[in-house]
Amino acid sequence: MALNLHAVTSRDDPRIAPYTAVRERDLTGRDGLFLVEGKVTLEVCITRARFDLDSVFLEEGRVPVLAELLEKLPYSVPIYTAPQSLMDQIAGFPIHRGILACARKAPETDFGGWLSAQTGATTLALCIGTSNHDNVGAVFRNCAALGADGVVLDETSCDPLYRKAIRVSAGTALWLPYYHGGSGETLLDTLKGEGWTIWTLTPGETATNLYKTPRPDRLCLVLGPEGPGLSDALLARGERVRIPMANAVDSLNVATSLAIALSHRLSG
Amino acid sequence: MALNLHAVTSRDDPRIAPYTAVRERDLTGRDGLFLVEGKVTLEVCITRARFDLDSVFLEEGRVPVLAELLEKLPYSVPIYTAPQSLMDQIAGFPIHRGILACARKAPETDFGGWLSAQTGATTLALCIGTSNHDNVGAVFRNCAALGADGVVLDETSCDPLYRKAIRVSAGTALWLPYYHGGSGETLLDTLKGEGWTIWTLTPGETATNLYKTPRPDRLCLVLGPEGPGLSDALLARGERVRIPMANAVDSLNVATSLAIALSHRLSG
Repeated sequence: MALNLHAVTSRDDPRIAPYTAVRERDLTGRDGLFLVEGKVTLEVCITRARFDLDSVFLEEGRVPVLAELLEKLPYSVPIYTAPQSLMDQIAGFPIHRGILACARKAPETDFGGWLSAQTGATTLALCIGTSNHDNVGAVFRNCAALGADGVVLDETSCDPLYRKAIRVSAGTALWLPYYHGGSGETLLDTLKGEGWTIWTLTPGETATNLYKTPRPDRLCLVLGPEGPGLSDALLARGERVRIPMANAVDSLNVATSLAIALSHRLSG
Repeated sequence: MALNLHAVTSRDDPRIAPYTAVRERDLTGRDGLFLVEGKVTLEVCITRARFDLDSVFLEEGRVPVLAELLEKLPYSVPIYTAPQSLMDQIAGFPIHRGILACARKAPETDFGGWLSAQTGATTLALCIGTSNHDNVGAVFRNCAALGADGVVLDETSCDPLYRKAIRVSAGTALWLPYYHGGSGETLLDTLKGEGWTIWTLTPGETATNLYKTPRPDRLCLVLGPEGPGLSDALLARGERVRIPMANAVDSLNVATSLAIALSHRLSG
């Protein structure tokens, strides 16, 4: 099958504008577009993701290697190619794997509509104030591996379609259902109104021991911001559950805490 | 109490040689010395660590703020101070928190001797080929929080006293007992000879389900290198144990897998 290939010869070619100055634009956004990098995430994008690709940008030697995968692209999606040095100039740093793609974010919906569309879902993670891209990526990876049906992120959490979050998520941010927006209070009230049991993971001694708490039918695990933790108003909306710890060390990484709670849930 | 303070006025002052070109020297080593940075790790170093401090290097404005902590230092440990700009020049990048210290590694011992000194230990983690500093740091943090008594790292794993590993470990690499050196085969043979049960965490379907395996009295959890996993020769030395997963996602981060297994062990 023919590929929709276009050789790029100038860094000023307007068709590759979304790929210019990648790092600076990670911070300022791309108007509804986002970038992915590397073979694994491109493959997820083409075969499994819920997002439409706008274009692909490859180091020219990659085309034959990736031909089988690229043939699965709709012909309408252009594939731009350039020599490595030009690609690096355009991106603003070395793109060692020579693979970038630009995709379009999904249109926004309201949380109630999103939640009712998750038919059959029994386990969700809710991030409140999770502003670290590594942590958001790890939350997705752990949810995907350990049987959560989706991720909810409040408006103060970071975008899971940020390039680094996608990479740390091992591409799972591209296919695991998620909702991003609204305040923690509003999201929790909606979940409770729909009959979800809310557990907030917290290190406090007064919280219930994870391993001694009956596992509910529909569970939303709430992760607070690292450092300050969740406010009293948010804690009051759920049951406080703690992971038993040793050595007077009272802190685990948020994504690690989530993994422990999800694995325990999946085990029985 | 008086502090052993010394103002540094030149980047060529030989007394602050261990603090020059921090990043380059992270890669080449410091002849038995290592650096720590930040208040939390300095505090661990002074109050809890198994290592002797050689010196402390502070942005000059930090001295009054840290006085209470610094008074716990033996007077023989010099505290060098400099303005922020000179400190940054010496280190080669901005030391935002203005706190560095230089400590001395412990003398090397043999593994058999180290192991027999861990009286009362019932849970160890063994890293084989864990070359990523973030992962080694996270292994220590998770071991400390979830009740492991020590960490063993083979010779191909990275140094837990590397600056970034200490930081990610939240300082636990400075006080949790560990042994670093030797081949995976030798380490495992010694552990088995001393009656330790060996579990290798592996995603294979043929492995035993973690949650359906009786918990042994003395357990060493083995983590393999990311990517290739453990060799057959190493796998043959223990029991293969898997964490149940969903969605055909067959991979968790090594430190996250360890946290799940440790938490399950600590729970019962």
